[in-house]
Amino acid sequence: MDIKQIEGGVTAAMGFTAAGAACGVKKSGALDVALVASEPAAKAYAMFTTNTVKAAPVIVSISRSGGRIGGVVISSGNANACTGTQGIDDAEAMCAAAAKACGKADESFLVASTGVIGAYLPLDKILTGIETAGQSLSRGGNRAAAAAIMTTDTVIKESAVEVVIGRRTVRIGGMAKGVGMIAPNMATMIAAVTTDADICRHALEEATRAAVETSFNCVTIDGDMSTNDTVFVLANGAAGNTHILRQTKAAETFQAGLAAVMADLAEKMVRDGEEATKFVRVSVTGADCYATAKKVAMKVAESLLVKCALFGTDANWGRIAAAAGAADADFDPQRIDIAINGLRIMRDGGAAIEDQAALDKTMKERDIQIVVDLKQGSAAASVLTTDLSVGYVKFNAHYRT
Amino acid sequence: MDIKQIEGGVTAAMGFTAAGAACGVKKSGALDVALVASEPAAKAYAMFTTNTVKAAPVIVSISRSGGRIGGVVISSGNANACTGTQGIDDAEAMCAAAAKACGKADESFLVASTGVIGAYLPLDKILTGIETAGQSLSRGGNRAAAAAIMTTDTVIKESAVEVVIGRRTVRIGGMAKGVGMIAPNMATMIAAVTTDADICRHALEEATRAAVETSFNCVTIDGDMSTNDTVFVLANGAAGNTHILRQTKAAETFQAGLAAVMADLAEKMVRDGEEATKFVRVSVTGADCYATAKKVAMKVAESLLVKCALFGTDANWGRIAAAAGAADADFDPQRIDIAINGLRIMRDGGAAIEDQAALDKTMKERDIQIVVDLKQGSAAASVLTTDLSVGYVKFNAHYRT
Repeated sequence: MDIKQIEGGVTAAMGFTAAGAACGVKKSGALDVALVASEPAAKAYAMFTTNTVKAAPVIVSISRSGGRIGGVVISSGNANACTGTQGIDDAEAMCAAAAKACGKADESFLVASTGVIGAYLPLDKILTGIETAGQSLSRGGNRAAAAAIMTTDTVIKESAVEVVIGRRTVRIGGMAKGVGMIAPNMATMIAAVTTDADICRHALEEATRAAVETSFNCVTIDGDMSTNDTVFVLANGAAGNTHILRQTKAAETFQAGLAAVMADLAEKMVRDGEEATKFVRVSVTGADCYATAKKVAMKVAESLLVKCALFGTDANWGRIAAAAGAADADFDPQRIDIAINGLRIMRDGGAAIEDQAALDKTMKERDIQIVVDLKQGSAAASVLTTDLSVGYVKFNAHYRT
Repeated sequence: MDIKQIEGGVTAAMGFTAAGAACGVKKSGALDVALVASEPAAKAYAMFTTNTVKAAPVIVSISRSGGRIGGVVISSGNANACTGTQGIDDAEAMCAAAAKACGKADESFLVASTGVIGAYLPLDKILTGIETAGQSLSRGGNRAAAAAIMTTDTVIKESAVEVVIGRRTVRIGGMAKGVGMIAPNMATMIAAVTTDADICRHALEEATRAAVETSFNCVTIDGDMSTNDTVFVLANGAAGNTHILRQTKAAETFQAGLAAVMADLAEKMVRDGEEATKFVRVSVTGADCYATAKKVAMKVAESLLVKCALFGTDANWGRIAAAAGAADADFDPQRIDIAINGLRIMRDGGAAIEDQAALDKTMKERDIQIVVDLKQGSAAASVLTTDLSVGYVKFNAHYRT
């Protein structure tokens, strides 16, 4: 199966245009409204935060993602969360304005917002911003759109690939924003992925669920779960490929391409984690099943003590073992092995550092891979995270005020 | 029901003596071996970490807590965790040495250790320390014993009460250590509680489980779970009260006294949380059941973003609501109210700050009480925690190295 990285992001697939505008929600004057439009209208599958407290745009998009979708509107700087019925009305107004601005007044739009919780949207500004963005929609608008969804992100996040389905080239591309409050179930992240694949709704759903599980749902920064997490996948069929049905080779190829885009976006989110000094991949191998592997990996990745030790460049295998044990998973603590960047630090549940000098050296690197081998079976999972830095605490102590 | 606070700690109850000795496990020369002896021998009920990775003294004490117990030996500075069969042998050797040092060679002792994970105990030093401690066992040895179990604690933690059972005074007292890695299921904490109550084994178990649930298990500092958590409760019957049977008024009185001691020790642990600048009580009221209330309270108390906001004296109700929602509990987000130190900040799921100046002022206080009212039912639970400070991260980045 051939997956080829290509340039571009949310407009890499045929038939998609995008734009970003600055309407003043962000005091800095930075871009804060993004539009993505599809011609022809697309099928959509979307996934959302599982938080009981859902932001208004999440509630609105949940009710809309079933039909034919003309595009997506995303605003940043204000999350439109905990805003009651006015929030719902505002989110609906954004959808209507987006449809009009894209010249697709009869089509349904999806909406997302990200930023500070608990303040009403400055709706007039946003509606003006949507109108402005609508006037500059273009195939080259992907970077402006990706910039317009950023909050505390320091870099834009895009990814795109090509796969071949039948004899046609199908493109899948997207944009995302992180960066704090990232946890299982897509906490504070928004991603919009587009494809020109012609695909049935069930195959699109299956591919999206599988790709999200191994990408955005295998990322944790601080264990917090947002009110606004959203992943949109829009498929407009413009590639003219043979219609993809579920559980076919074509569906498998599509899913692999989608997973590659999402994994790349997820990694870019973690690499841009707020004030992080390390990019950490926690892999659990030798588990009896995927669920166990992921549970243990997530527990290690979420451990504050492990993350503090990584910030301090300390290969503290005791904390890693203790965190793995806290996962309430079935394994024999007397058998586990742990390695960091290929250097063994624990064998059969006991200390086993072979080369302290090499270990001290590798702990200073930015990229850290922790491998915990449970030696129970053959399943594996990886979770991406960061260290916990002094900078993170300072940043989040003063973010809102 | 009358619960009277009294002086003393682990020797407040009749028949208990204690001592602390310095044997050189701690490089500082501080006390690092604690002995507690009971005359006559006691019944014991003990609770331990639920971590899959259990330290050697936990494994040894689990196998011993059924019989008549002569006392307890606790060492600090080294956790004897992830130390394989040698760790088990070392923990057994500590028990035998303690029994001998207390002149109770025929009785069984319980053992606990706390400190760095993954190094073998310096057993010779510890055995010498146990012998030394045995020579200074006394009724007044409680403070030395409490000091000898400290690791990163900055103050000793003791508590004691009297209750009246029938016409006899019964004493319950104890000592504990925290301070980091404190989480549900008693993570990195050790507590030894003694009582002179005459009580049946089942009543002792029921009272201990109930008291631990609302005290040590309602505390979280960083969500990490230790390999060594232990709570010992020893009851020697020296008070001469009428034997307490389960599900009686006497058992209820005893349980209330035990819960008071444990709650006091738990609060002292949180107040001494590593580098914390706030003592935080998160109370959830109006829940449909205790389990829901506790789950939501724990999720708020564990949220890094909430804790960072508290460190920054920011009454960030959006983060509190988002954390409550992440608990996967059944409540209506459009109904919840949130208050901090009695000042309303959220009503019916939306912002409701009435007095910003008063709020800014109260956020600067050391003691913060967050009340989340779900308005679903009448159950409530409280969890104690701290903020997340820059100092905590610095401390735990460099603790071991």
